[in-house]
Amino acid sequence: MQQFMNGKDTLVTEAVDGLVRASGGALARLDGYPHIKVVVRTDWDRGKVALVSGGGSGHEPAHAGFVGQGMLTAAVCGEVFASPSVDAVLAGILAVTGKAGCLLIVKNYTGDRLNFGLAAERARAFGLKVSMVIVDDDVALPDLPQARGVAGTLFVHKIAGALAEAGADLDAVTAAAQAVIQGAVSIGMSLDTCTVPGNPREDRIAAGKAELGLGIHGEAGVEQVDFAGARNAMAMVAERLAPHIGKADHVALLNNLGSTTPLEMSILAEELARSPLGGRIRWIIGPGALMTSLDMHGFSVSLLPVTGEQVQALAAPVAPPAWPGLAGFGEVALRPLPDGLTPIQPEPSAHPQRRALIARCCAALIAAEADLNTLDAKTGDGDTGSTLATAARALTGALDRLPLADPTQLYRAVGMELSQTMGGSSGVLLAIFFAAAGDASASGKNWIGALTAGLARVMQVGGASPGDRTMIDALSPALAALPQGVGAAATAARAGANATAAMTRAKAGRASYISADRLAGFNDPGAEGVARLFEDLARG
Amino acid sequence: MQQFMNGKDTLVTEAVDGLVRASGGALARLDGYPHIKVVVRTDWDRGKVALVSGGGSGHEPAHAGFVGQGMLTAAVCGEVFASPSVDAVLAGILAVTGKAGCLLIVKNYTGDRLNFGLAAERARAFGLKVSMVIVDDDVALPDLPQARGVAGTLFVHKIAGALAEAGADLDAVTAAAQAVIQGAVSIGMSLDTCTVPGNPREDRIAAGKAELGLGIHGEAGVEQVDFAGARNAMAMVAERLAPHIGKADHVALLNNLGSTTPLEMSILAEELARSPLGGRIRWIIGPGALMTSLDMHGFSVSLLPVTGEQVQALAAPVAPPAWPGLAGFGEVALRPLPDGLTPIQPEPSAHPQRRALIARCCAALIAAEADLNTLDAKTGDGDTGSTLATAARALTGALDRLPLADPTQLYRAVGMELSQTMGGSSGVLLAIFFAAAGDASASGKNWIGALTAGLARVMQVGGASPGDRTMIDALSPALAALPQGVGAAATAARAGANATAAMTRAKAGRASYISADRLAGFNDPGAEGVARLFEDLARG
Repeated sequence: MQQFMNGKDTLVTEAVDGLVRASGGALARLDGYPHIKVVVRTDWDRGKVALVSGGGSGHEPAHAGFVGQGMLTAAVCGEVFASPSVDAVLAGILAVTGKAGCLLIVKNYTGDRLNFGLAAERARAFGLKVSMVIVDDDVALPDLPQARGVAGTLFVHKIAGALAEAGADLDAVTAAAQAVIQGAVSIGMSLDTCTVPGNPREDRIAAGKAELGLGIHGEAGVEQVDFAGARNAMAMVAERLAPHIGKADHVALLNNLGSTTPLEMSILAEELARSPLGGRIRWIIGPGALMTSLDMHGFSVSLLPVTGEQVQALAAPVAPPAWPGLAGFGEVALRPLPDGLTPIQPEPSAHPQRRALIARCCAALIAAEADLNTLDAKTGDGDTGSTLATAARALTGALDRLPLADPTQLYRAVGMELSQTMGGSSGVLLAIFFAAAGDASASGKNWIGALTAGLARVMQVGGASPGDRTMIDALSPALAALPQGVGAAATAARAGANATAAMTRAKAGRASYISADRLAGFNDPGAEGVARLFEDLARG
Repeated sequence: MQQFMNGKDTLVTEAVDGLVRASGGALARLDGYPHIKVVVRTDWDRGKVALVSGGGSGHEPAHAGFVGQGMLTAAVCGEVFASPSVDAVLAGILAVTGKAGCLLIVKNYTGDRLNFGLAAERARAFGLKVSMVIVDDDVALPDLPQARGVAGTLFVHKIAGALAEAGADLDAVTAAAQAVIQGAVSIGMSLDTCTVPGNPREDRIAAGKAELGLGIHGEAGVEQVDFAGARNAMAMVAERLAPHIGKADHVALLNNLGSTTPLEMSILAEELARSPLGGRIRWIIGPGALMTSLDMHGFSVSLLPVTGEQVQALAAPVAPPAWPGLAGFGEVALRPLPDGLTPIQPEPSAHPQRRALIARCCAALIAAEADLNTLDAKTGDGDTGSTLATAARALTGALDRLPLADPTQLYRAVGMELSQTMGGSSGVLLAIFFAAAGDASASGKNWIGALTAGLARVMQVGGASPGDRTMIDALSPALAALPQGVGAAATAARAGANATAAMTRAKAGRASYISADRLAGFNDPGAEGVARLFEDLARG
């Protein structure tokens, strides 16, 4: 069994236990394993109308996941896709029903109707008031007079649940449930069948096809259609639902049948809004996995024309976390892009000394291009020299528009230039370096302090430290030595760069993917570039 | 593309629109499509610390699904598994950050670190206070110093979110986030890889195998292991987590990586409780799909040792419906089975006339066995006669223990006998018939009224009406004619039974599966049985 289960015999009992355990005390189960698998609210006092639902398992969170304040009082769980026994249903009814009585909410399948129906009779023989409604929201099979009960059942759970919680009597709750059943329509579509535990997966739906109007037990759909994307899929669903709905405002329930990804479900929500039905849908429940069919890759849309009272009941808060709530379904709310995405070009200004320094640094990097490429070719993809030289050429070309007279603005402008001209991680890291230096300068740091702050930020963001075989191994000691002069810095940078040749366990950057024996004996090209730069400056 | 999408280029933009649309006005997006995909809270006032997270898409509901009161202020969405651009992150920061500043919560991937990091620098250049934390909760790769950020990120979202919502300042929120990152550990396991839109699905994990320690982008796990069910899978996960956790009370986050069914997730919750870690887990978040990897069939467990303040922050209510809440994780709460499941045997009593009537009815059905079987063989599986005769024989054998003197108790007792001795739907329906008749008798109906009430209930529960080619077609006219005497009832039953031969479109029961030309000319065997019964009684 290639599923996270232990065996077919225990899968429902173990799952019910897991659900109860993770409910934080909100749920309990009846002590009737293995045949009686009934989940009940622990905060129940029988003074209100009890709501009991259930049926075969495999549709989770329905129904046990909807037990709790404001929804079901008890759920009776059968084995996967199999109706629970009469005794199990009776146990559920007896466990929660007081003088206010009990409403059974049953999906329209023969087994469920009969077993819940007989259990209701037995409960009535105890003097309990029990009524039963049968949900038949599926419009997939127009010629079958007994439509199936599918995800529209949740409208009934929620609206009857809100009324029962508010203290309505059994007749009122039953009438409200009947009214919902009268209005609710649903249809599903799937790209694949489901994997029934212990059975091989049926390979019924070919690639490029979808099934429209299938049920929640993997039974075949009304027809196989060509699948042509989400828009077309929703259009077909909308076309089947359209004849069944009037001009009223509707609530839509957009249900994930199992393994459809949240991305797909959100796209389907968008397509539902854009479909011809969109204009009649004012509220939405989901998208979410509410009435599933194991791991089926499909979805269903349920619609309910609603009165104000029904909207209120659907919107009432509930305890079960599986219930996604009711939300308005309208336009996509847009907010304008904030100012500041297009950086303000600083006013250029003159500072001959700084201009010469930058030009010299750039020249040094351009001069090192071939050597650094050769070095990088030993341990990487051979482009470190070109990457740095390209950036240096661009910066040289930008000298006239730099705010050379203002150190803070200058750091930031250099960072901006580099982020726009230098690709890859190194470009971003150098941009971060200069931007952070600019911040430090703005807060009063001198130039060594500013560059040191830049390095600290690069280490935080990039996740590399000295010893990781990156340019930091040269830059960090160089900045530390700068107070002793540029000569000291150059010496420190060289020592640091040379030390990288022995660092064969790179922990960050690209070299972390390269084997140790390929790295040994070669300096890191980034660190070498930094050393060349300081050595050039030290030459005066 | 066999997914509910329209194309790779629009999948994230359409999904974000769908999410925003279905949020009922709680969310908006920045007007920066296609490159800037940022979801923001609409109820945000910049007076509090903004929380911005994001990264590549494909992990929904993370991160856009966690934008809202008490969690994120904005989410920056990249394309599937691709980091968003620096501009997109900057737009997100600028859109929501006021004087209180902004915390960036970033999963530890190079692209995210760099792009969020540079965006932070740019935002700081505008004078904004921006801090950034990097989540690295994955313990799968012990030798990699840069652990990945996976589902433990949600601990950070939630705890930092609660603090920010409560008005804590940026330093406090950042420190709280750092403390969570310090403690959080995660590991994942999967039975299959994920389907990246536009790419063929990689077939890396063989049947019978699972991958332990895989990431959330379909990257290979630390090792492939033999898969031997849910218990064994959770044991392996627990074994990897155990060395990383102390004696403190922990919160567990049980995450569905995509297409694992809710049944499986609940079983995994149960196994987590039973695992050696169980004793150290006092609270649970989920199980649920929180940080997914598209449609990956897998799960992850994240653990966080918690202080009282952290538990409070995790338990604080939030707006995003995708957040499942925090629940206590303890014993499975049991409730005793209710009394009444074993029906009380009524006191036997004597009533020679009724005894004779029942015996005669039974004899009539036993006499009809062969004929009814023959008739059923034409249109069904040939066992109607035997089913009824078997039940009749059992009821005859039970005459001595029936409460013959009390009509109400007698109906109920007959119903109970039939439900225990007669298999299939017809047994349940006859049991319902007599049980409902008993109820009606208890409320004062005479015997015709009681039987009529029984029939009404059978029609409701079974969903069949006159004309549907069932025994109702004989029973209904017979009961209607009974006030005119049993002779009239027999005549009506016979006419009704004979009319079924022309009913070739059965709407209920087994005959609804049989083709019209096979049904034509043959009476429904159930209706025929009813007619035979009344005809026998009419003979005096």
